[in-house]
Amino acid sequence: MPSISVKGREMPASPIRKLTPYADKAKQEGKHIYHLNIGQPDIETPQIMLDAIKNIDFKVWAYTPSEGTVSYRTKLSSYYNKLGYGISPTDILVTNGGSEAITIAMQACIGPGEEIIIPEPFYANYNGFAHSAGIEIKPILSYIENGFALPPISAFEALITEKTRAIAICNPNNPTGYLYSRKELEALRDLCLKYDLFLLSDEAYREFCYDGNEFLSPMHLPGLEQHVVVLDTVSKRYSACGARLGCMITKNEELWRTALKYAQARLSPPAVAQLAAEAAVDTPQSYFDAVKEEYTARRNTLVAGLNEIPGVYCPNPGGAFYVVAQLPVDDADDFCQWMLEHFAYENQTVMMAPASGFYSTPDAGKNEVRIAYVLNINDLKNALVCLERGLAAYPGRV
Amino acid sequence: MPSISVKGREMPASPIRKLTPYADKAKQEGKHIYHLNIGQPDIETPQIMLDAIKNIDFKVWAYTPSEGTVSYRTKLSSYYNKLGYGISPTDILVTNGGSEAITIAMQACIGPGEEIIIPEPFYANYNGFAHSAGIEIKPILSYIENGFALPPISAFEALITEKTRAIAICNPNNPTGYLYSRKELEALRDLCLKYDLFLLSDEAYREFCYDGNEFLSPMHLPGLEQHVVVLDTVSKRYSACGARLGCMITKNEELWRTALKYAQARLSPPAVAQLAAEAAVDTPQSYFDAVKEEYTARRNTLVAGLNEIPGVYCPNPGGAFYVVAQLPVDDADDFCQWMLEHFAYENQTVMMAPASGFYSTPDAGKNEVRIAYVLNINDLKNALVCLERGLAAYPGRV
Repeated sequence: MPSISVKGREMPASPIRKLTPYADKAKQEGKHIYHLNIGQPDIETPQIMLDAIKNIDFKVWAYTPSEGTVSYRTKLSSYYNKLGYGISPTDILVTNGGSEAITIAMQACIGPGEEIIIPEPFYANYNGFAHSAGIEIKPILSYIENGFALPPISAFEALITEKTRAIAICNPNNPTGYLYSRKELEALRDLCLKYDLFLLSDEAYREFCYDGNEFLSPMHLPGLEQHVVVLDTVSKRYSACGARLGCMITKNEELWRTALKYAQARLSPPAVAQLAAEAAVDTPQSYFDAVKEEYTARRNTLVAGLNEIPGVYCPNPGGAFYVVAQLPVDDADDFCQWMLEHFAYENQTVMMAPASGFYSTPDAGKNEVRIAYVLNINDLKNALVCLERGLAAYPGRV
Repeated sequence: MPSISVKGREMPASPIRKLTPYADKAKQEGKHIYHLNIGQPDIETPQIMLDAIKNIDFKVWAYTPSEGTVSYRTKLSSYYNKLGYGISPTDILVTNGGSEAITIAMQACIGPGEEIIIPEPFYANYNGFAHSAGIEIKPILSYIENGFALPPISAFEALITEKTRAIAICNPNNPTGYLYSRKELEALRDLCLKYDLFLLSDEAYREFCYDGNEFLSPMHLPGLEQHVVVLDTVSKRYSACGARLGCMITKNEELWRTALKYAQARLSPPAVAQLAAEAAVDTPQSYFDAVKEEYTARRNTLVAGLNEIPGVYCPNPGGAFYVVAQLPVDDADDFCQWMLEHFAYENQTVMMAPASGFYSTPDAGKNEVRIAYVLNINDLKNALVCLERGLAAYPGRV
């Protein structure tokens, strides 16, 4: 049979998927795996949202407008305006998940060959999206020692060239869980205004802020109205990752219209998800309070448990449901694979995401892992036992 | 308030959206518009598919695997194998609509700066997808005089360079409705084998073949197994455009794995749509028979009606639910806008898509329009009356 070689562009593999073949094999061998590697929460979707799916009453499952339905955008703007964003429904562009919000925003703001600055570690798929679009990411290291706080503004300034078009942050941060302070965001605002840069604010984990900390968005900062682009999703807010519904928000009309052309090329965001997400805006506060309480308890268990393991260090992050922890190993990629391939404690093991995939700088984060606390406390405790035993047995321990 | 200029890449506007502002204005003025401009069918979605939405029973609306669920891919492969494609579930990659199937296939097959050859007129959003990915489309004119048949193979061969990586066809064709013959497809097969090119086959309208013509896919052609990439969607098959569910199929494992990396970057296709589309595979044949009968009657009404209007010429296409017709006007873009802005007959008018947006060659198709027969026969007849009156009154008539 004639063959053809595939010479299309290189696409960086997703670091949270790299280990999937080893996990599949471990499962085939009958091992139980604690999945701390992905951000798929076990939290139930609000009933009001599930009911909206069950109550659909259309006869033709039709396209919606490319920018999303008027009805959903109107309701959704009320959610943002309760947070003080001061937006109108026409500032919202509804997307196929947060992923598409990121790709469309990148493409609308940044031309091929131009640059975006992002503190690292950062959400690994930014690499893929930028790569597809011919955009270069300029990373700035943040450090576990200060809990992955925003790097000094001078470090950003040193990277700005004529090609720099934007800065991106994820707040609260994936993978570190770090929650940016008002002071940090104001410093970014001043920088963006000084150099006329867009500020992309990925706020997928907005609902998950702990210890009484308030979430602050660049949308709240006066003077930055034309520069801020919020990237959002219903995935984590309502534990509705499978809805594939996100949005991009900007008060910059020219940018919105440019982004719309990308949205029009792919015709429509999903219709049923918009009906469900519109209903979900009425999710009672008690739902979020309970979820926050649960995640706070999980984080406390996880962070305390990690720091009790000899040689492990984990900062206590203010948000999201991830931590990045330092392990006493030579190479966390090898260790995570070894845990799946060669280790079991009472026939159980742990799957984590090596942090190297969240860095662009070579060798950065080599002894770090990202852990998602998306399991219940009992499972987390069992996973911690596995991890401790695994580290004790690992040949590459340092 | 400080402003920022949007200097991101140029994105070609969708030709079927260009006239939307004029349509909105016409509606505000109280005119009734017959929408023959877009491919949103009025046909009802199969009840079995709608019921599957209503019968969801999950508690957590979770991500599915990036390539789609095993369950859906297994069921979906049975649909294709009834058609004789001889595929396995692992040849399928489930996507966010047909749109994403096209973008992922283009990016996996073709590197930045490389080329794809496509007979024109072609589905206008190919332009946007190629543009986003830095891929160059090399168009080959097909002609209304022979009903938009495949251009001679020598015309393809003349365009092949070292940068050529693929040929794409849409069959039955959007916008022309042309259904490719076995002879034409075999000629393309020989060409792709000779020059080692991928053959992208957009089969969104597979279900819509008339006059007893059988649909033939490049998947049916022996020898081309490693070169064919089928691009598909449930949008038209089940009148489920709002599901945003498509797929890419290839027996080329290396290509599939490359495409998977793009799919992994955006995490997951929509979950509820996969449940619904899995159920839809059991849609009874009587549904498709009734739909085909309806579209055949509409096409017959439309094509006969168009050819009765003085100066209008419209071939009788074998598939899809579009025609491209030639009008006695100097510029169909101007005419279509004029119909919305300045014309009404009994307070009604017609919205069509100027064909120029479906051509890359400058000035090609300048006096042509694409008409979608997605309205019932009575509305189509009324729309034909409007069009005839409009043409008679149009100042730019030639």
